[in-house]
Amino acid sequence: MASHGFWSLGAENAADSTSQIPSTPRAWCQAAAQKFTGGIGSKLCALLNVGETEKPRDPSSKHGSSEAEACGCSKATVSFSDLYSTDLLPALDGDMKTMNFLQEVVDILLAYIVESFDRSTKVIDFHYPNELLQRINWELSDEPETLDDILISCRATLKYAIKTAHPRYFNQLSTGLDMVGLAADWLTSTANTNMFTYEVAPVFVLLEYVTLKKMRAIIGWEDGRGDGIFSPGGAISNMYAMLLARYKMFPEVKEKGMSSVPKLAAFTSEHSHFSIKKGAAALGVGTESVICIKADERGKMIPSDLERRIVEAKQKGFVPFFVSATAGTTVYGAFDPLIAISDICKKYNIWMHVDGAWGGSLLMSRKHRWKLNGVERANSMTWNPHKMMAVPLQCSALLVREEGLMQSCNQMQACYLFQQDKHYDLAYDTGDKALQCGRHVDIFKLWLMWRAKGTIGFEAQIDKCLELSEYLYNKIKDREGYEMVFDGKPQHTNVCFWYLPPGLRYLDDKVEKMKRLHKVAPTIKARMMEYGTTMVSYQPQGDKVNFFRMVISNPAATFEDIDFLIEEIERLGQDL
Amino acid sequence: MASHGFWSLGAENAADSTSQIPSTPRAWCQAAAQKFTGGIGSKLCALLNVGETEKPRDPSSKHGSSEAEACGCSKATVSFSDLYSTDLLPALDGDMKTMNFLQEVVDILLAYIVESFDRSTKVIDFHYPNELLQRINWELSDEPETLDDILISCRATLKYAIKTAHPRYFNQLSTGLDMVGLAADWLTSTANTNMFTYEVAPVFVLLEYVTLKKMRAIIGWEDGRGDGIFSPGGAISNMYAMLLARYKMFPEVKEKGMSSVPKLAAFTSEHSHFSIKKGAAALGVGTESVICIKADERGKMIPSDLERRIVEAKQKGFVPFFVSATAGTTVYGAFDPLIAISDICKKYNIWMHVDGAWGGSLLMSRKHRWKLNGVERANSMTWNPHKMMAVPLQCSALLVREEGLMQSCNQMQACYLFQQDKHYDLAYDTGDKALQCGRHVDIFKLWLMWRAKGTIGFEAQIDKCLELSEYLYNKIKDREGYEMVFDGKPQHTNVCFWYLPPGLRYLDDKVEKMKRLHKVAPTIKARMMEYGTTMVSYQPQGDKVNFFRMVISNPAATFEDIDFLIEEIERLGQDL
Repeated sequence: MASHGFWSLGAENAADSTSQIPSTPRAWCQAAAQKFTGGIGSKLCALLNVGETEKPRDPSSKHGSSEAEACGCSKATVSFSDLYSTDLLPALDGDMKTMNFLQEVVDILLAYIVESFDRSTKVIDFHYPNELLQRINWELSDEPETLDDILISCRATLKYAIKTAHPRYFNQLSTGLDMVGLAADWLTSTANTNMFTYEVAPVFVLLEYVTLKKMRAIIGWEDGRGDGIFSPGGAISNMYAMLLARYKMFPEVKEKGMSSVPKLAAFTSEHSHFSIKKGAAALGVGTESVICIKADERGKMIPSDLERRIVEAKQKGFVPFFVSATAGTTVYGAFDPLIAISDICKKYNIWMHVDGAWGGSLLMSRKHRWKLNGVERANSMTWNPHKMMAVPLQCSALLVREEGLMQSCNQMQACYLFQQDKHYDLAYDTGDKALQCGRHVDIFKLWLMWRAKGTIGFEAQIDKCLELSEYLYNKIKDREGYEMVFDGKPQHTNVCFWYLPPGLRYLDDKVEKMKRLHKVAPTIKARMMEYGTTMVSYQPQGDKVNFFRMVISNPAATFEDIDFLIEEIERLGQDL
Repeated sequence: MASHGFWSLGAENAADSTSQIPSTPRAWCQAAAQKFTGGIGSKLCALLNVGETEKPRDPSSKHGSSEAEACGCSKATVSFSDLYSTDLLPALDGDMKTMNFLQEVVDILLAYIVESFDRSTKVIDFHYPNELLQRINWELSDEPETLDDILISCRATLKYAIKTAHPRYFNQLSTGLDMVGLAADWLTSTANTNMFTYEVAPVFVLLEYVTLKKMRAIIGWEDGRGDGIFSPGGAISNMYAMLLARYKMFPEVKEKGMSSVPKLAAFTSEHSHFSIKKGAAALGVGTESVICIKADERGKMIPSDLERRIVEAKQKGFVPFFVSATAGTTVYGAFDPLIAISDICKKYNIWMHVDGAWGGSLLMSRKHRWKLNGVERANSMTWNPHKMMAVPLQCSALLVREEGLMQSCNQMQACYLFQQDKHYDLAYDTGDKALQCGRHVDIFKLWLMWRAKGTIGFEAQIDKCLELSEYLYNKIKDREGYEMVFDGKPQHTNVCFWYLPPGLRYLDDKVEKMKRLHKVAPTIKARMMEYGTTMVSYQPQGDKVNFFRMVISNPAATFEDIDFLIEEIERLGQDL
């Protein structure tokens, strides 16, 4: 097997140049062009030939035709119908086949990406579960399939996938597809490593260190000091916070369990995310010990009710240990009043957590960050860049003000992973502060996007989404057939509203009207999915019947897309 | 902006063909070639031109030159030094720039992949943390960088990364890089969605359903019935199991917390993974309630000790609720005797969990699956395809025998996500059985690899790794200067051994000998990393001083790589 030791990467750019370089760029180039198809050879070639003027440009010359051959211009496309995965690397001489196969996959992905941003395509080609199960053979068998079949499966998978990058996909808090973030995620997959030690993820561990510090500085913690971790989503980040709060107050709980501590009470608003209760159930606190504080008409926690319930809990013998304020509630996008809440937490000596999974990113905007005033007083904060900052999934951070607490709370000092006699600074072996052992590399996407956009780029992106939601609010607040779920301009990009079809608008029978209105949003949503034109979420809340919750986190969305959404709701709902 | 509605994917392969097709293949082709560089146009073209004989093959013809232009053969390489991320999609007319940029990234990745498999390259270009922090500017700033800078960052990141695909990388239980798995992960990133509902991840939810069912059938549960989930790693999977065991015995714990239940006791072997204790700490059970059962000389749990400790715990007023047997311990690769353990669990009515994070994949091998005999009697099992099956990180499954338990244990019925009035079968909205809210798509890598290899392909891959470890064992068991940590052929690919440099072999002073031997493995390991030639793990265990733990899960490894490892240990350690 030929040696490819000369494929030293980035020698012309990296800080040092100890890597081996082929004898001449020309020699390198020719080898590259022969090795690769899909234009890769010629591109790598061009990369190394920077400044080399002697490179022949005539496509009919020897060099040019070698390139042409390499990029497949005049060559029959490789047939994958008699190739199997065992023909790819690490197979002997599998490198060309591997390049061809991966390039083919990339071609499929690139076409999908272009299609995803095209408004004339469907957001989804919807099929019911049983129908989709039968439409394609998804079963796993004993025998291998050819690479051709694998490519067919890739195409089929994308055909029935949601185009989350589509400018009219508004269904979740995470929408859009950032091209630099995507590139970073492809690189992350290729690097295929694990965050637990510096030993196996040197660069990524450093990037997590740099990025968490930056995020803490943005929160307002002095010099960015503190701690933190990227976790597999906001729910786990919130669970970490509750775990830390409990440990801070009762460190013996780690060894002795909940039977060693008094009955605990946690507090969060009735509009908060369900993960607070889920975490309490898992940690053995119990959902009944999560006390739901009243929210005002706009969905913000009422501080006086918080204080009242804390006092009440203490009187009942509970020990209040955790308050989770929400910065950007899931449905209304409300920001709890953090300063007032922090005063109460201080007074009663309770850990203050801010669940900013959705709204935390507004800290990046000079125009909107006031909504989180007081966050710097929190003990911990959840902040999901995979939502409002449109970093590809998953990317959620827990930031903690106290240094060292995560480590002492979670460490188990497994001697086969966190050896104490390693030859480098063990402070970078961050794995033992995690609940997980292996941990996926989520940092690179965020870091690379931040480099590409700068803080001001994220700011512009966030400001634009908020501008779009204000546009939507202004458009429908007085429009016939619309009713806002709460009054006033939304604080985040959540716009909650009912659409009343003409036949419902003047119904006198209130009960009948509500009963029918409750079915409007689900029906329109079902039709949206069947037509595949757009997607937006809906839900009831308390005694309020089903309403639309529009959220905008997709950087591809424009004013015209907002107009389209309204037209589409009316088109699909007018007969209801 | 031009419409690309005609980029309908896979129309020639998918089951239906309702998608829009351009007027003629030629028209499509020309548009494609103009749109894309990097050979993508021509490839898509060739794809659609299947059967079209009129396609000109002469590269000097109009069609050919359009292709040549498109693939960059005779065109200057795009300059990224004056482009920014804002020039990419969703920017108006950003599609060509996007294609060029992503293709450039892919070219970097493809070169890295080929390099990774090349034995003449380093596994790691090691630098100490502070040095690496200063070597490159990793900081985040307010201002954006050009795409050229972004590409430089990508190259730098890979330059200092560990080559986990390298045939001589043996450091962790997860090694290697599967090309189909990688392709699948790139597709997953591109689809960028979330597993919580069928609504946003129709295909992936179905593939998880199909795959979990298949895995349960392989465990031996009738018709593959049961439940399960892909979680962010083995530690979380184990925590799920403990959570389910507790809920099954005391369902009131969900609402009322641990203060409503008696003192609980969990049991696992002294060789088990630290995540059992970590889980117990998090769930409020407490680490002291995890009773470590003695293991025999080979690292297998001693059933009689398990029974003795269960009886003892009951006498002390504890309620035994959870036994975690290990199938493939982290250090020795030992398989606990599952049948004997299941008899005890049945007798005392205790939930039996099998932590097969490392060894579970041996179920795929007809030759080795007997080592897990009795697993079909377990209530739950952790099985990480990202370890022995070499699926890219992360891919960990928890399989549960009882249907519906996960749902009732974890559900919180958030009305904004799991609306009960959707138009499709809600059984496919699996998110509420998870601890997480958003959940990364980990299934596609495993599913696509399974299709590509078939069960027999995984079997062959696993059998080969075990064969290599047997080769290593046979090679060193009687070799001068080596001592095995435990006697007999390893059951998994873990081979644990001391290397005694010549100067240590005949030392009479036992204390001095052990003191010096303790430093041998760390020193050799540090040198391996500095030379970058190979990587293998080491640790102490109980009263045993540091020894090497060789594990093989890398499908790229060969007999020669095993020979190399031994030579390298001797080369780097002979002077110690």
